[in-house]
Amino acid sequence: MAVYTRIGAEAMAALIGHFAVGTLTSAKGIAEGVSNSNWLIETGEADGATRRFILTMFEGRTEVAELPFFLGLLDHLAEAGCPVPRTIHDNSGAAFRLHEGKAVALIEFLPGVSVSQPTAGQAHAVGMALAQVHLAAATFTRTRANTMGPAAWADLLGDCGADGLAAIDAGLPALIASHLPRVTASWPADLPQGVIHADLFPDNVLMLGDEVTGMIDFYFACNDTVAYDLAVTHAAWCFDDAGTRFLPDVSAALLAGYHAVRPLGAAEQAAMPMLAQGAALRFLATRAYDWLNTPADALVTRKDPLAFARRLAFYADPANAGLFGG
Amino acid sequence: MAVYTRIGAEAMAALIGHFAVGTLTSAKGIAEGVSNSNWLIETGEADGATRRFILTMFEGRTEVAELPFFLGLLDHLAEAGCPVPRTIHDNSGAAFRLHEGKAVALIEFLPGVSVSQPTAGQAHAVGMALAQVHLAAATFTRTRANTMGPAAWADLLGDCGADGLAAIDAGLPALIASHLPRVTASWPADLPQGVIHADLFPDNVLMLGDEVTGMIDFYFACNDTVAYDLAVTHAAWCFDDAGTRFLPDVSAALLAGYHAVRPLGAAEQAAMPMLAQGAALRFLATRAYDWLNTPADALVTRKDPLAFARRLAFYADPANAGLFGG
Repeated sequence: MAVYTRIGAEAMAALIGHFAVGTLTSAKGIAEGVSNSNWLIETGEADGATRRFILTMFEGRTEVAELPFFLGLLDHLAEAGCPVPRTIHDNSGAAFRLHEGKAVALIEFLPGVSVSQPTAGQAHAVGMALAQVHLAAATFTRTRANTMGPAAWADLLGDCGADGLAAIDAGLPALIASHLPRVTASWPADLPQGVIHADLFPDNVLMLGDEVTGMIDFYFACNDTVAYDLAVTHAAWCFDDAGTRFLPDVSAALLAGYHAVRPLGAAEQAAMPMLAQGAALRFLATRAYDWLNTPADALVTRKDPLAFARRLAFYADPANAGLFGG
Repeated sequence: MAVYTRIGAEAMAALIGHFAVGTLTSAKGIAEGVSNSNWLIETGEADGATRRFILTMFEGRTEVAELPFFLGLLDHLAEAGCPVPRTIHDNSGAAFRLHEGKAVALIEFLPGVSVSQPTAGQAHAVGMALAQVHLAAATFTRTRANTMGPAAWADLLGDCGADGLAAIDAGLPALIASHLPRVTASWPADLPQGVIHADLFPDNVLMLGDEVTGMIDFYFACNDTVAYDLAVTHAAWCFDDAGTRFLPDVSAALLAGYHAVRPLGAAEQAAMPMLAQGAALRFLATRAYDWLNTPADALVTRKDPLAFARRLAFYADPANAGLFGG
């Protein structure tokens, strides 16, 4: 949550001048994104109209090679009518440019706010929008492997070590030992594949009332099991933040919204409890790793790993196996 | 440069609902301000028009008691036609409200960018705008003492200690010893007094081309020697960042712009070299203190104290005494 690079006003005006969007009238660094810098840009057209954009500077080296996937995906989905921001191409037609050696992209600004306490109506809309993305992405031809799959969970949790995990919570090593090997060993490999968002938390969805106005932050998007994306979204939306309280109305609405646009196949539906346990393990793994590797006084807020340990226990409980229907 | 407090979308919508500005459609935390949190807010009116505001949350305890001065000053200056943002009062007429115990104010959004390399034309406009503020503020009745006057410079530099100052630069203790006692002992006490901005760096001025569209961040504003404000602004605008290169064209334009609106009196003009040395000492003092008291790995960027040590030496050089005319 920071702006890592300073761009002076004159340099910013020159940068924006490479796009056919009018003249720069405002640029505010915004506190979004974990590893990228972002600015909310306003431009003025000759007729006095103002337009707004998000300028993203990709601070990480590896991401640049993946930009054709990420930015091409936005264009593909927007073209198909999905509520995602378009990439503004520069005057030479490029989806991103280099500014002092770093890649920058100009992205359409979309109105909307990220809800903290989703209602059933909002979850229904998110389920529909996610399914719409899955259908539209079927004709997207670029591919990207999921770098946050089961092997990564095992690596991250292994790096934490039993002592590290126990330092977070005394019960964590046993919880992981009882679930991680089982989930990774029985991880579904033959379900329908496609492009998934893979991180569709409420923070990454802009809404106005019950309408999804923008799905953003596709920087974990990849090719993987499509139904796993619904499991991730379920884990992200259907509990209170701490993971202590399951929200049955929100869950039912999210699933119904998804099914209304892209009904799950029988095999997908049967696998949902396992996919949801995997989703819980995925965020438990990254949060535990970050918890142990982020200084307590860093400005970046550490997210509680136990919130996903609780979700894991919930999804693994046979009493909740009927949750996804089927 | 951070957002220190999280406000959920639902809470933000409720907060904005206390102002007659339409419905919240977007809220982005922005990376501005050192000790406050700021959001760029967008609202929609019933007729589809969008409006933008800055929401500031005052994180510091002491500032709250001073908000009637700071926010009242904005209203007073805006009313007089100065390019400063208005405070939006809430539905009960209050200039600020409490949100979970912290004061928040909704401020008009103004277009414009903060220039990095001011031109003479821009400096001329800033000189005029500063003089306009000084004239308009003469009828503002609230008062606030300058907490960053000569006594504070001595305190801050004393806290740094000779060893600390020498750790920044070997020549710094001698430079300060030769100038601080002299400047504080001969500090003018009988020049015209008034409300001053006291921190009008390019960062705190929004411009479109050569037009000043907004003077912002009045949180050092206070009652003090009016011409000292011009000296601060001169020190802030008329050198390159490092303080190694004086910009004579920018200097001449800034002074001419100021004089065109509020000609300095003979005593003010005669005092300008001393006031400018004081301005250099003021920022040298806070930067040296922050340099020694900010962890090198903090996300807040430390500003180079030597940039103002060089300005101090420049202003103290008899060869430059004619700079301000008179």
